[in-house]
Amino acid sequence: VSLVSTGVVIGVDVGGTNVLAGVVTPDGRVVSSVQQQTPHRNKHPRVVEDTIARAVRELSAERPALAVGVGAAGFVDTSGSTVAFSPHLSWRNEPLRAALEARLGVPVTVDNDANTTARAECRFGAGVGHAQVLCITLGTGIGGALVVDAAVFRGAHGMAGEFGHMQVVPGGRVCECGNRGCWEQYVSGNALARAAAATTGLAVVEAARAGEASAVELLAEAGAWLGTGLASLCAAFDPELIVVGGGLSQAGDLLLDPARAALLRNLTGRGYRPEPAVLPAALGVDAGLIGAADLARARLG
Amino acid sequence: VSLVSTGVVIGVDVGGTNVLAGVVTPDGRVVSSVQQQTPHRNKHPRVVEDTIARAVRELSAERPALAVGVGAAGFVDTSGSTVAFSPHLSWRNEPLRAALEARLGVPVTVDNDANTTARAECRFGAGVGHAQVLCITLGTGIGGALVVDAAVFRGAHGMAGEFGHMQVVPGGRVCECGNRGCWEQYVSGNALARAAAATTGLAVVEAARAGEASAVELLAEAGAWLGTGLASLCAAFDPELIVVGGGLSQAGDLLLDPARAALLRNLTGRGYRPEPAVLPAALGVDAGLIGAADLARARLG
Repeated sequence: VSLVSTGVVIGVDVGGTNVLAGVVTPDGRVVSSVQQQTPHRNKHPRVVEDTIARAVRELSAERPALAVGVGAAGFVDTSGSTVAFSPHLSWRNEPLRAALEARLGVPVTVDNDANTTARAECRFGAGVGHAQVLCITLGTGIGGALVVDAAVFRGAHGMAGEFGHMQVVPGGRVCECGNRGCWEQYVSGNALARAAAATTGLAVVEAARAGEASAVELLAEAGAWLGTGLASLCAAFDPELIVVGGGLSQAGDLLLDPARAALLRNLTGRGYRPEPAVLPAALGVDAGLIGAADLARARLG
Repeated sequence: VSLVSTGVVIGVDVGGTNVLAGVVTPDGRVVSSVQQQTPHRNKHPRVVEDTIARAVRELSAERPALAVGVGAAGFVDTSGSTVAFSPHLSWRNEPLRAALEARLGVPVTVDNDANTTARAECRFGAGVGHAQVLCITLGTGIGGALVVDAAVFRGAHGMAGEFGHMQVVPGGRVCECGNRGCWEQYVSGNALARAAAATTGLAVVEAARAGEASAVELLAEAGAWLGTGLASLCAAFDPELIVVGGGLSQAGDLLLDPARAALLRNLTGRGYRPEPAVLPAALGVDAGLIGAADLARARLG
């Protein structure tokens, strides 16, 4: 019996709010998973590594880990070694791959969490069969990925897809990245939580699903900001499909219907071009960890 | 003597203000050229075709045209047959290629004018040797192209790169495309001309070069809008290089220095990532017609 048949590949999605980890099969199914809170951004990077290592240990208690893939909420360099910057975590030029490999003793791949989400959705989810796809992850902030010819476009230095930090309001709300008016300040878990004076964006989603009118309104408002931003991204990229994932996408059509309406109202050249569909991530909140594991498996060769 | 050695390839750049046409050599040099005003947007598309045909006839008076490439200020479909929409011209689902081939009796290629500019700059100009390049053309409006792995990214339907119609001010200035707050309403020939109550943006550029303080200020203001938008595009694309062409780029550092300053001030993750250079188009205002001719030559096989 070879190690390959007995070991597991683990994906870890390190978001601004939660760390989700799971054992992922070659066809993209999650067979076991754990969830923990992400350490606060003023904690040392070591504390985040502790959290990741704990999750991996738990998931590899019965069968050893062959490889670990990490999708990290930050700007990851082209080589997948370093998190150069993270608005929502303490990483600054952090050599995350080396640190985790030293701790875990297995090969580790690191990529941006929205990139791993896009990889998963395009291989196993809503993006299957599509070549030019725009992926948006709505979590603590907004992550993004542009899929070009069915592969994630990384830009010159690995940092493409940071759509959440495009300015949508001149002199607008202060962002964790240090700028003002960033898109994610108007539609994200943090933005919703602030608007509702709630603990998390998901609490607002749950209230809306339970029928609370003010929460439904907040989601509609966030959806309108989402759709307006998507219209700008359609002007730039002309995707055939938009996939929306991340924790906040659990709001479903309470968020996506207002987004679709705002997108169609603001799409430049509307009436003279195909209108892209806006779909929820088929793999739900697991997409990020599934893509991270899939990338790690691919690197095993 | 073969036709190939005696005939010429002609590029035509149809902008919102001027039609530039030229005979272009295989290595991207313009050996003769003509310029005419673009017919007003309320004129029938036939009138624009007349203008293009007149320019081609003039340039092929001595040696026959083998092929004609057109860079058109509009949303061109993937097949290069149809201009689906143009904010600044009368084209609406216009079968421009067929119409011009019927008139001219030679193979015609049609592409977006910013795409042809990007092609020229990446083959013969400022983008040579670079893989991930962002190209901006500042003319009547803002055109754009994203170069991915040294080729122009077209999106799903040929309409990618319309950066000028990304919303930068919610509820902002009315745009010719039908939306509000589009980037090109804050930095473009039209925007400058309106701000200065001048006839054209180039008149403002000329006044600034002659030292008129109010014109210099207007260019600095436009440059700040340019740089802020470029910062958003860097968040999205992470290019290694930004090339700025189009008629307005003749303003040079009077426009580009304020743009560079605003870009660096607004670049998300600044200090933790390489900062892209902002260069003027090396081929100047001829880049669009050079790229159009080069594309037409490539299609000749």
